[in-house]
Amino acid sequence: MRSIGAGAYAPLAEAFLALLGSGGKRLRPALALAAYGFYAEPASEKAVAVAAAVETLHNATLVHDDLIDNALVRRGMSTLNAVWNKGATVLAGDYLFARAAGFAAETENVRVVQLFADTLRIICEGELRQLFSARQWRQAKEDYYPRIFAKTASLFAAATRSGAILGGATPEQEQALYDYGHYLGMAFQIVDDILDYSGQEATLGKPVGGDLRQGIVTLPFFYYLQSHAAPEGVIARLQQAGNGRDDQVADVIAAVRTSGAIQQAFAEAQGFGEQAKAALEQLPDGLLRQALAELVDFTLQRRV
Amino acid sequence: MRSIGAGAYAPLAEAFLALLGSGGKRLRPALALAAYGFYAEPASEKAVAVAAAVETLHNATLVHDDLIDNALVRRGMSTLNAVWNKGATVLAGDYLFARAAGFAAETENVRVVQLFADTLRIICEGELRQLFSARQWRQAKEDYYPRIFAKTASLFAAATRSGAILGGATPEQEQALYDYGHYLGMAFQIVDDILDYSGQEATLGKPVGGDLRQGIVTLPFFYYLQSHAAPEGVIARLQQAGNGRDDQVADVIAAVRTSGAIQQAFAEAQGFGEQAKAALEQLPDGLLRQALAELVDFTLQRRV
Repeated sequence: MRSIGAGAYAPLAEAFLALLGSGGKRLRPALALAAYGFYAEPASEKAVAVAAAVETLHNATLVHDDLIDNALVRRGMSTLNAVWNKGATVLAGDYLFARAAGFAAETENVRVVQLFADTLRIICEGELRQLFSARQWRQAKEDYYPRIFAKTASLFAAATRSGAILGGATPEQEQALYDYGHYLGMAFQIVDDILDYSGQEATLGKPVGGDLRQGIVTLPFFYYLQSHAAPEGVIARLQQAGNGRDDQVADVIAAVRTSGAIQQAFAEAQGFGEQAKAALEQLPDGLLRQALAELVDFTLQRRV
Repeated sequence: MRSIGAGAYAPLAEAFLALLGSGGKRLRPALALAAYGFYAEPASEKAVAVAAAVETLHNATLVHDDLIDNALVRRGMSTLNAVWNKGATVLAGDYLFARAAGFAAETENVRVVQLFADTLRIICEGELRQLFSARQWRQAKEDYYPRIFAKTASLFAAATRSGAILGGATPEQEQALYDYGHYLGMAFQIVDDILDYSGQEATLGKPVGGDLRQGIVTLPFFYYLQSHAAPEGVIARLQQAGNGRDDQVADVIAAVRTSGAIQQAFAEAQGFGEQAKAALEQLPDGLLRQALAELVDFTLQRRV
């Protein structure tokens, strides 16, 4: 098995053990292994390398995201930046990027390495867009979809595509697995954005309503604003946040939570879920395909 | 030619143009091209890709270093973190890592990709070590060498080695070019550490004495402390820094600057320079080898 390791540097090793030990669904490496499994024995060295690459890349982005968002809790545990200073947290994330690149290189497949590099680029562009569009309450709903593709679906799609490439899929089946990962990722992120409003803090392992508090506009909010009789009034309340009037934001979060916006957003997640299942039809039937179809349902039903 | 680009994201593109336009010696890509040039036409696509990879990786680490150090000026210009917020700066660095990985993948050489991944890992480990050993005034001089290898020489050596790999060098010549890059990098960093004491702010494009102010112990300080009659007194003065007594640090910087420590450190840089030149003897004689030998002298004579 692969180990993230940390050279001879003990504090780093401890921090990573804590991060990895804190749980997480390990969905992305599972996707890479499943895609590979359609074509070859999933326990191969290369399949494990690509699974490690995708999970390590994901964790690297989480470390930096938590730093950027000043998040103190993830998966019910203290984040790295809550414990370490800014510099150490930046470097710990960079270290994980290096390890992810190393794992990707271990596949000895140049297309896979290029795919990982492209995906990290897309993720960074998406995060930058999100950062620079924060608190722009009037932004267009159409911009939401490329943003969540960049943030989440691109890595899901990279996981399934790289599994397919390494397994030796035909171009058509590689595309089908890419599409599956893409649509599953879109559904996953919409559900994530819904849970940020409707979830329970104890189950989520992080505070509810964090997106809106940070000025990040997601699908439930778009629907809420769209159907609101006086959207300018909502925006005026949000603009008071940060001026000692965080109660105004809490009121908006509660309003979104109990509005029809949650159901409207969920219907979109279901639509992406259907598209993910449709993509699977290109693939050989069997237990693996069934498991991937069930993963769509799991994604839509998850509460955490 | 390669372009770093920034997708459709204009603010990022502008920031990178400013960063790249601000100068820098472009030493690392030149090393990669020179190493490649021993074996093949240096203007090839792959040589340009690896040169772009090494310079982009270097700039990515600079963006994060400046954030970590809260540095406001580099190459006489405002750093990214002086203009952008923490989050955008972290992501801009990550974006550059992604582009560096993409350029490395364009070489279509798995060993080169692995070398870049390993080098980034070594750099991060080194930076973490530096961070966690800051203000440990009594640290061992022996720890300085692995630290500057990680921080600087590892990327110099990766530049020359990857050029050699892509050019098709024999294992012996690849090793010789690696050694050359390694020793040149060690000499370069020692000179850098000397200039941090003895340089002119106007020429350096950044404040003098920054290392000691940040608690980073470098070779001149080791020699200064070693030859000082009352090292405990020096350490006591440094410990007052940050408590409104920065004048105490300024005094120590001035003392190091005018002590014999500068010459002692420089003699070590010269020693590494000699080793770099010795490594060149394994390589075919000619203009290129001569240029690399002159680069050693340039590195030792530089004032910026």
